[in-house]
Amino acid sequence: MAFLSSRGRYAINALEEDDVLADKIIRSGRQVIKMNRGDPPAYFKTPEYIIDAYIEALKENRTGYSDATGIHELKEAVSARYKRLYGINFNPGKVTITQGVSEALLFLNSMLINSGDEAVIFRPYYTQYLPDLEFYGGKAILERYSEKDNWNVDLDGLEKSIKKSIKRKRKAKYLIITNPNNPTGTVLDLKVLKEIVELSKNYGMILVSDEIYDEIVYNGAAFTSISKIAKGVPHMILNGSSKVLDSTGFRIGYMIIPEEDKRSLEMNAEAKNLSRVRLSSNTPAQYAVAAGLRNVVAHQQAVRSMVNEIAGRVNFASRLINESKYMNTVKPSGAFYIFPKLDMKMLKIKDDKEFVDRLLEEECVQVTRGSGFGDPGHIRIVSLPPKEILETAIGRIEAFCKRHSR
Amino acid sequence: MAFLSSRGRYAINALEEDDVLADKIIRSGRQVIKMNRGDPPAYFKTPEYIIDAYIEALKENRTGYSDATGIHELKEAVSARYKRLYGINFNPGKVTITQGVSEALLFLNSMLINSGDEAVIFRPYYTQYLPDLEFYGGKAILERYSEKDNWNVDLDGLEKSIKKSIKRKRKAKYLIITNPNNPTGTVLDLKVLKEIVELSKNYGMILVSDEIYDEIVYNGAAFTSISKIAKGVPHMILNGSSKVLDSTGFRIGYMIIPEEDKRSLEMNAEAKNLSRVRLSSNTPAQYAVAAGLRNVVAHQQAVRSMVNEIAGRVNFASRLINESKYMNTVKPSGAFYIFPKLDMKMLKIKDDKEFVDRLLEEECVQVTRGSGFGDPGHIRIVSLPPKEILETAIGRIEAFCKRHSR
Repeated sequence: MAFLSSRGRYAINALEEDDVLADKIIRSGRQVIKMNRGDPPAYFKTPEYIIDAYIEALKENRTGYSDATGIHELKEAVSARYKRLYGINFNPGKVTITQGVSEALLFLNSMLINSGDEAVIFRPYYTQYLPDLEFYGGKAILERYSEKDNWNVDLDGLEKSIKKSIKRKRKAKYLIITNPNNPTGTVLDLKVLKEIVELSKNYGMILVSDEIYDEIVYNGAAFTSISKIAKGVPHMILNGSSKVLDSTGFRIGYMIIPEEDKRSLEMNAEAKNLSRVRLSSNTPAQYAVAAGLRNVVAHQQAVRSMVNEIAGRVNFASRLINESKYMNTVKPSGAFYIFPKLDMKMLKIKDDKEFVDRLLEEECVQVTRGSGFGDPGHIRIVSLPPKEILETAIGRIEAFCKRHSR
Repeated sequence: MAFLSSRGRYAINALEEDDVLADKIIRSGRQVIKMNRGDPPAYFKTPEYIIDAYIEALKENRTGYSDATGIHELKEAVSARYKRLYGINFNPGKVTITQGVSEALLFLNSMLINSGDEAVIFRPYYTQYLPDLEFYGGKAILERYSEKDNWNVDLDGLEKSIKKSIKRKRKAKYLIITNPNNPTGTVLDLKVLKEIVELSKNYGMILVSDEIYDEIVYNGAAFTSISKIAKGVPHMILNGSSKVLDSTGFRIGYMIIPEEDKRSLEMNAEAKNLSRVRLSSNTPAQYAVAAGLRNVVAHQQAVRSMVNEIAGRVNFASRLINESKYMNTVKPSGAFYIFPKLDMKMLKIKDDKEFVDRLLEEECVQVTRGSGFGDPGHIRIVSLPPKEILETAIGRIEAFCKRHSR
């Protein structure tokens, strides 16, 4: 009999599985171009007005526990942000502050999933969606974002799958989307979003929208928050400071459950209960993020400058990738990832896992295997580094492909 | 069929269940003396050298993700601390940085407990031990700290219980103690600790020692870390910055699994895997805590001054409580809690829950019900406030008892 619990097998994170190897390479004196973590502060200094607010909170001795569900100032700032950006109104009490969206995902599954319950996840998914669901005993109904349709939701078959789930007496408890998407960089069409809202409503699934990249949109794309079109349908918005406020290391996320139906009220109360189990999020960081959300002028300036720079880098890297005969990518219009498809037929390499491991060992470039997002035959490249590094890295990927071509 | 998952019923926290009522009272314009949260920074300024290190980390842009398992500097500082305080050696790789001991408790249960597995918990227990175990499907073997034996472990019957568990084919996976104790303030005897180590070894239970108050010891008590006497026996130390470094709101804890046996190695690897699921702890706070642990002279000065003050307050409050005919307490020698037994026969009040709720409503004093620690008929009082507040609060408790006496 195994000593550890069986859920341990789901405690995995594809984004970091090669970190041990990368560290070994670094310790041996070689440099590694790390393109596996979506970590803006590694390339863009966290805006000064946010740092200043953080320091102020520390100087004012805001170092004790906060309310487990989050400080009121931050909940109010989140509420005001949604009013300002999306024109929607909800009470600050509908917000629960979490230790990053990572914790919000654990709360989501923990509150909804009994062993055997199902949930709809679209491939390629953010790496943690599937293991987090399975960690709590859930099963995924794996649907697809369609690569040939610019990674939009493939609605054909989705309804059929949900009906099958119902036949198995295993009604899908929730459906989760990421918009803008990680790993594809796609901003979902309004039309598609509306259909997803409709489906969620018709089949009584909680609609979960992970909108952590909501202000990182470019190339003319138009982002719509689910909160804007799901009025009357139970839904949950996941967001936080990590990407848009360029502060991944603060670990401040939030979960909004704005509706007033019975299920939404139950979920909101449960989010609060779950937050109390771990007492508090980091207190001074919450004050920093509240200031980051409230200081609209400084924020707009900072985010505009960061997004412009990101757009330039992503477009540059996408062009280089599409010049290669070994891979090609849909051009992203949000977030900062590129998710090229490898032409595996041209390569003497078994799969994306071997590709990623050997690329790291041979070329000191760390990217993530597509199978970690549920989509083998792809790799995810974080396109945050400056153009000269992107050029070097993609040049090495190209050289690697050439060396291993059939 | 319930919509929320069944584990939701274990997402409870007795320490905060009256916060909503307390907030309501505060909003109505009355002041509440809050003695429910063990939150040193509310009464003692976090030492300046720690704040300075935190600010320095922010100014140096340490705002991105850290290694999920924690920054190396902090793991090294933890390792050096244990060498300095307890003379034991372990590799920094044996340390996993967690978001407070709260998260470490979730990791513990998550890694060891399959549905139906058992664990030994002593009553009165820290509020989260039981619900956290049950949250992951576990069952408690509830043993006792004995009030008449200065809240030391009641070893009679413990071995019998473990044998019963084995008969049920439900071997207890772990045994957890808190030393110094919350809520009783007891520092466990070395003799008792040695017997617990022996029992854990004989019955193959992982010995878990929550030592978050390890430097908050007074009245001549001598604290022994389990790590010092459990050499060769698989064990796990839980600790963090919250209490000793007076920084609860940083959310920096750690889990040490120092041994080299197969189970310890498996648990240590699993702790790392679990940490990767949520990407990172707060990064600048880790640098602050690393500095807090490394700066030994400044630390000793700060902790000595805080502990002296705490000892004075706890002794003062204990004396006042023992002057009452409605309650009496064992005199604590560690941490900063007092856990008096109420003489319920003398009161026209049903139980400790009613006592606590009505005390809050009528006297604006918030304490925690003993049943939240598995020991009805008691209340827990956080004795961190200055003497004049302690005097007022205990005076009000006394008046409350008088008013409701039989």
